[in-house]
Amino acid sequence: MSQPASVDYVFDFSSPFAYIGSRRIEAVAARHGRRVHWQPILLGAVFKVTGGAPLIDTPLKGPYTKHDLMRAAREHGTPFIWPDIFPISSVAASRATIWLRDNDDDALRARTADFIHAVFAACYAENRDISSPEVLATVANALGLDADLMMAGMSDRVVKDRLRSDVAAAIEKGVFGTPTIFVDGEMFWGSDRIDQVDRWLERGGW
Amino acid sequence: MSQPASVDYVFDFSSPFAYIGSRRIEAVAARHGRRVHWQPILLGAVFKVTGGAPLIDTPLKGPYTKHDLMRAAREHGTPFIWPDIFPISSVAASRATIWLRDNDDDALRARTADFIHAVFAACYAENRDISSPEVLATVANALGLDADLMMAGMSDRVVKDRLRSDVAAAIEKGVFGTPTIFVDGEMFWGSDRIDQVDRWLERGGW
Repeated sequence: MSQPASVDYVFDFSSPFAYIGSRRIEAVAARHGRRVHWQPILLGAVFKVTGGAPLIDTPLKGPYTKHDLMRAAREHGTPFIWPDIFPISSVAASRATIWLRDNDDDALRARTADFIHAVFAACYAENRDISSPEVLATVANALGLDADLMMAGMSDRVVKDRLRSDVAAAIEKGVFGTPTIFVDGEMFWGSDRIDQVDRWLERGGW
Repeated sequence: MSQPASVDYVFDFSSPFAYIGSRRIEAVAARHGRRVHWQPILLGAVFKVTGGAPLIDTPLKGPYTKHDLMRAAREHGTPFIWPDIFPISSVAASRATIWLRDNDDDALRARTADFIHAVFAACYAENRDISSPEVLATVANALGLDADLMMAGMSDRVVKDRLRSDVAAAIEKGVFGTPTIFVDGEMFWGSDRIDQVDRWLERGGW
């Protein structure tokens, strides 16, 4: 059975804008009969290749970006507190996500979005250290997922390799920050482009 | 007689996103009983202080930004061609704008927006060199403005000083790119924030 076409959501758990967008993208995709393909990447690896830097750290733009972020969070009613640990290493969370997303078990695959939302919330709404496998295990348990199975899956070579190749593929496609959204190859950067993605899907591009 | 409250539109004629936003900001302001205060600045002078660089020139982000710009122009039905001369020195056009905007003559002051739109269109729709005073004179004439008077006004020390102090004031307020829009002190950067400015005015902030 063929799946519906996807909207690809490329994100780093360490990107607060990716958190904000993660709470809106599914509704937009669903409105147009699409599913979301979740693609966690590691911005640190991207920046190494592209010479980029986190917006938040840029002089002048940094403080404004933080203000802009909080304003967007308030507008969308997104709970947001600045995490004590920032930036956050998102390797473990990304591997856990890929293990779920690419799992042979349909029931596990179906929980991918739940897990992503829970990890993002743990970080940006509950100020928990999502770089820690123990925290991820707690998050998984709270969702009724088998944390031991997940921990084992995260060490799987296939999962590790897939994260690496997903990062490489994102760089190849021109990703330099997250969230980046792809609709049939068309690239949109930023959670502030989600309304435009909605209109793009509505009109079939322009 | 007191004027209605303003929406401040800080822009550089050399910023194509400022062009796109310039065609939308008045309708948004008017919808909320506001006028637009036009504040031309010189991004070159801003970048000297802030260490910033044009987005268009940034590796990876540059090509995407160009794509994003053309997509926004098409979406809003904004005529757009990439000008042969870019970036463009906007000193002369900024001075001419300030001469009109701050003019003692009400009738001239009232033409400020017309002139701004015509200069932007000359650059981004007609590919004319708006750094040239001759081109600006032609634009002024086409609007029925006295080009000689304008040319004289542009050399006025008060006008020159005002442009300099407007640039300094913009830097002081945290401007690092254009367009930047201020609503009662609240700062919004980017033509892509105009819908949010609209909602901000509607709700009186949040």
